[in-house]
Amino acid sequence: MFQKIVDATEPMADEKEAINPRFSDFVDKQTGYTTKNILAAPLMNGKDPLGVVMAINKVGGNEFSKADEDLFTKYITFATVIALQHYTSYMYNVESRRSQVLQWTASKVFEELTDIERQFHKALYTVRTYLLCERYSVGLLDMTKEKEFYDEWPVKLGDVEPYKGPKTPDGREINFYKIIDYLLESKEEIKVIPTPPVDHWALVSGLPTYVAENGFICNMMNVAADDYFTFQKEAVDESGFVIKNVLSLPIVNKKEEIVGVATFFNRKDGKPFDEQDEQITEALTQFLGWSVLNCDTYDKLNRTEWRREIAAEMVIYQTKATPAEVQQILVRHHTSSCFKETAVFIMLTKHFLSPKDVDLLLFSFSDLPVSELDLIKCGIRCFFELGVVEKFKVPAEVLTKWMYTVRKGYRDITYHNWRHGFNVGQTMFCLLQTGRLRKYYSDLDAFAMVAAAFCHDIDHRGTNNLYQTKSTSPLAKLHGSSILERHHLDYSKTLMAEESVNIFQSLQKRQFETVQHLHDVCIIATDLALYFKKRTMFQKIVDATEPMADEKEAIAYVSNNPIRKEIIMAMMMTGCDLSAITKPWEVQSKVALMVAAEFWEQGDLERTVLDQQPIPMMDRNKSDELPKMQCGFIDFVCSFVYKEFSRFHKEITPMFDGLNNNRVHWKELADIYQAKVDAIENERKRLEEEQAKKATGEDGGEGGKSKTCTIF
Amino acid sequence: MFQKIVDATEPMADEKEAINPRFSDFVDKQTGYTTKNILAAPLMNGKDPLGVVMAINKVGGNEFSKADEDLFTKYITFATVIALQHYTSYMYNVESRRSQVLQWTASKVFEELTDIERQFHKALYTVRTYLLCERYSVGLLDMTKEKEFYDEWPVKLGDVEPYKGPKTPDGREINFYKIIDYLLESKEEIKVIPTPPVDHWALVSGLPTYVAENGFICNMMNVAADDYFTFQKEAVDESGFVIKNVLSLPIVNKKEEIVGVATFFNRKDGKPFDEQDEQITEALTQFLGWSVLNCDTYDKLNRTEWRREIAAEMVIYQTKATPAEVQQILVRHHTSSCFKETAVFIMLTKHFLSPKDVDLLLFSFSDLPVSELDLIKCGIRCFFELGVVEKFKVPAEVLTKWMYTVRKGYRDITYHNWRHGFNVGQTMFCLLQTGRLRKYYSDLDAFAMVAAAFCHDIDHRGTNNLYQTKSTSPLAKLHGSSILERHHLDYSKTLMAEESVNIFQSLQKRQFETVQHLHDVCIIATDLALYFKKRTMFQKIVDATEPMADEKEAIAYVSNNPIRKEIIMAMMMTGCDLSAITKPWEVQSKVALMVAAEFWEQGDLERTVLDQQPIPMMDRNKSDELPKMQCGFIDFVCSFVYKEFSRFHKEITPMFDGLNNNRVHWKELADIYQAKVDAIENERKRLEEEQAKKATGEDGGEGGKSKTCTIF
Repeated sequence: MFQKIVDATEPMADEKEAINPRFSDFVDKQTGYTTKNILAAPLMNGKDPLGVVMAINKVGGNEFSKADEDLFTKYITFATVIALQHYTSYMYNVESRRSQVLQWTASKVFEELTDIERQFHKALYTVRTYLLCERYSVGLLDMTKEKEFYDEWPVKLGDVEPYKGPKTPDGREINFYKIIDYLLESKEEIKVIPTPPVDHWALVSGLPTYVAENGFICNMMNVAADDYFTFQKEAVDESGFVIKNVLSLPIVNKKEEIVGVATFFNRKDGKPFDEQDEQITEALTQFLGWSVLNCDTYDKLNRTEWRREIAAEMVIYQTKATPAEVQQILVRHHTSSCFKETAVFIMLTKHFLSPKDVDLLLFSFSDLPVSELDLIKCGIRCFFELGVVEKFKVPAEVLTKWMYTVRKGYRDITYHNWRHGFNVGQTMFCLLQTGRLRKYYSDLDAFAMVAAAFCHDIDHRGTNNLYQTKSTSPLAKLHGSSILERHHLDYSKTLMAEESVNIFQSLQKRQFETVQHLHDVCIIATDLALYFKKRTMFQKIVDATEPMADEKEAIAYVSNNPIRKEIIMAMMMTGCDLSAITKPWEVQSKVALMVAAEFWEQGDLERTVLDQQPIPMMDRNKSDELPKMQCGFIDFVCSFVYKEFSRFHKEITPMFDGLNNNRVHWKELADIYQAKVDAIENERKRLEEEQAKKATGEDGGEGGKSKTCTIF
Repeated sequence: MFQKIVDATEPMADEKEAINPRFSDFVDKQTGYTTKNILAAPLMNGKDPLGVVMAINKVGGNEFSKADEDLFTKYITFATVIALQHYTSYMYNVESRRSQVLQWTASKVFEELTDIERQFHKALYTVRTYLLCERYSVGLLDMTKEKEFYDEWPVKLGDVEPYKGPKTPDGREINFYKIIDYLLESKEEIKVIPTPPVDHWALVSGLPTYVAENGFICNMMNVAADDYFTFQKEAVDESGFVIKNVLSLPIVNKKEEIVGVATFFNRKDGKPFDEQDEQITEALTQFLGWSVLNCDTYDKLNRTEWRREIAAEMVIYQTKATPAEVQQILVRHHTSSCFKETAVFIMLTKHFLSPKDVDLLLFSFSDLPVSELDLIKCGIRCFFELGVVEKFKVPAEVLTKWMYTVRKGYRDITYHNWRHGFNVGQTMFCLLQTGRLRKYYSDLDAFAMVAAAFCHDIDHRGTNNLYQTKSTSPLAKLHGSSILERHHLDYSKTLMAEESVNIFQSLQKRQFETVQHLHDVCIIATDLALYFKKRTMFQKIVDATEPMADEKEAIAYVSNNPIRKEIIMAMMMTGCDLSAITKPWEVQSKVALMVAAEFWEQGDLERTVLDQQPIPMMDRNKSDELPKMQCGFIDFVCSFVYKEFSRFHKEITPMFDGLNNNRVHWKELADIYQAKVDAIENERKRLEEEQAKKATGEDGGEGGKSKTCTIF
């Protein structure tokens, strides 16, 4: 168990006055004691010495005997066991403190994202009792690597000496911009010193700078004897604190940059810090250093959020209707500049507000002859007709500004532009008024539904959800499903958050929440991918109300059940969104081409940007098949919607009639194209057969089956 | 050290056949051995028992004697020491493993921000050797709390049964959306199972669900005997793995939500998991749970970044000049639609491009008679005049689009609008050309300087840096200093990143970097707070070049030193930014009012929004003092700039003359106002004195000095 017993008996006891060269008389000189002979043995833990036991000056003899050695050896066995137990127990305590330190530090670091100062302070404060020292201070280092160009000018011009002071290993000038100082003795005291002077007691020794410069752990066991601490003539501050020993460690982040220096002063038991103290504080500072990731993330998150806010404000500024634009709508119809009068005036002249020969109550309304500016006026008029402007105290200027802003929110793309947005809003208005669906809804519902319909495709980019996904656009990353619809919804809610364009500004909180929810329902409902989910539920409602003789019964059945109201509302949105297919043929034939053109543009992008073959619907090389595809779209998607709505409310039948009429036209075109294709195919076959016959004739009637020459 | 020695000798050795009720014959029955008497003692660690030592069946006697007991007691002392050493050593090992597990987990968690799956996997993989088990699996729980409204419809309509399955304590349906399965035996094997079926072996016992439901730590010491594991008839998978014992723990985040369940299978030594295993794995799962903060942050950071990207794209879309707007500029002057021709055409007709009677080479140029659209054309013309369009292959359409986009980037505010942006660009053009400062700069420098000058205040909000700080606007949070300037700079760089408006698109990488740096220098230089830093440096350059007789010497002195070039450039920007003060009086008198009006508007905001008293310059109640303040501004800020530039290049003297002329006008107005003030003050004094005299007369000539009554 132990390596060797040293028997120093003879050389000293020999009276030869020749002292054993291994013996140091230091202690004898200090104490006046005379060491004559020593019997010594180490206490070993495997290969590591735990301590040494010595027996000094044999009593009743001149030297230790062989028997003494044997006895000593036996006792050493027990002594080793005790020493080992003591050592293991101490090491257990060290490891236990280390895991406690780590667990508590983690507990604080993960509590919230915060800045480095707060994070270090919280963590160190929490583990302070495990550190067993009288004081600690943490110096935080400036992380700036590059200076502003104008601060470099005087140096580069040679007017100012370049910096020659200490630098961190990664090349930063060492500058402690903050010190957290924690006095643990007697009444605890925390101080945070921003931009500490270089002669601050926690820095003046130069030790933190040395640690920051080299990244070493420095353990100064006896400060009094150290050059670094000659500055300390008296107590460092008014607390009377005197530094006895110091353990200083760098705090290093995962990028291997020194972010700060932690210094621990005066071990509690008065002894110098030992290897185990180094281990525990190293585990702590390492953890703190790594955890700077969270502080950096906090900073990054904040900066990204601020950038987002800046951009969001710019969007609002750039898209919000300007006072001049608002006046364009308002002023033309009256001369008063007072807005209260304006509101009244618009109400009185609402029939003049929208252009002549425009009947917004017709399902067959066409936007094509109306200018985009006039469509804004038509949109405003819908709200007046609904009676919601007066009821919900919408200032005329706000309504105008909102409508104009919605218009500006639509991009100038081929199909999903302001005209489409307007048409959906106008159809919603028609379904409610002309289609008499309004009876199931409150005025607030109707207000929200028409507003949502106008906004439903705002900021559309002319490409569909699948394209967003395939091109991994930020929109697709943000929204898992109904990608564009969620964006249109976000946009419409942004407008509600902007007081100067918020048409719902006079509503009470509960009413406002209802409006927001109805926007969710209406705008998300325009995702055609969700259409098939709601078909059966809608059909059931139509089935249930159809046999009801009394209108009141049907009204009660629907309007007393918020879910049925929502389902019908959602299907109304689909009916509005697809309504172009129900318009008079001269309109539908033009609009269908715009839809197709936008699809083809997406197809082109898929080919060029994504390097993919578009589906036939988006492939401009298959544009001849448009009529056939329209028939398919009518049969598999649209027909159900308008058929069921006509069954639900006979007032909506004009839409179904329009659809069927267009079906006839598309079928005709599809048949003509098919006839052409068939004719070409027949011609091809005929030519083939002819060729074949010819060949047979030439080949001698055998149809060229064999390439070997037949000899007649 | 130990509590009590149990001497069970008598009752059994007594041959009375009466068995001591404390004795269990279980082992005897199993082994066939006959226990006659027992001497037993516990091994204690303080109050905790570490074990029991038993001596069985006294040899050479019917019972253990008092002497046996004494001897036994002595040996127990040593046995306790050994047992305690063993125990402490084991606990040391446990604590040591615990700190290792924590340190390694931290090392991985802080390596990078990532998603929960990757983070858990990395951490567990790293600490796997400390876990001492044959396999582990982690089930990740769906964190969704609310469903989409349309998914709730069938339930709310009563068509579908509501969910009745197990839920987490915070009310989520328990749904393991992913399992990470790690087989540590023999060749290691990792499997990630997305959307595992409910009958997956790692879930089918129901234990993970139970843990997720209750949040308990479950330690199943003997799986064979447990109801949960009756499913296990054979190996769980093709690896032949059989579950013997299981330790399952919830992973709980700081919000007390269970985010997953970690299950450890089969302790390596075949024994069941013990309390210490629970401690170590609990420390691990607790840490992992807390560390979910980082995954949540990662998600949040990504989402914020995507939202920022979406908003940034919208800004670009909304501010980029449309093809129609570009055509407005281009088409009016030619009929060709081919752009190459256009470019040539514009060059040939450049004198027609900008409106008649406009001389962009004059320092006294005034924008006031020119429309905003024509100013765009004037801006374009500057680049043609500089000769940089051809040299740096700027497509005419891109230049036009860029210039128009810059114009749209300026807000329609009182002073810092497009007109101001244009004027600064035009003055830069003048300083280079008319002022002959161009000789120090390359063509690329000149190109960048004029472009930066046009952009220098883009998206200004009509309030200054101090207002940003006081109102804690996102801009102020993002930028520590030169707040607005950094924003204008960001904006100008955004335009460079947008191919269709990037006038620097044909440059080589190094050239492009130069342009970017010059934008930094020029735009940041417009922060007047930095003006005083560069004054002396600029003056030194002027002093140095003044005595140089040979122009070449001065050119070499400046253009061979990039810092001197930058300092002059920065001062040129200040000269441009303040140039309104040098314009003919009829211009300056109007523009000064616009500047003042914008200041007053900020003053109003400070009063209303910040509830603060504005400084006199921004206080519209002190508008009368404008002439006096203008004189001060000229004397303390502007005079130096134009005086030094005139000394530097006599060609710039017209600016200094203009300034001095305006100084005369402002002084005149200031004097008139002062005369008025003085007159009022004199009148006030006169009235006061009159009043005083009157009072004295009444009081009897003593001037009312004493209020005591004087008796004559």
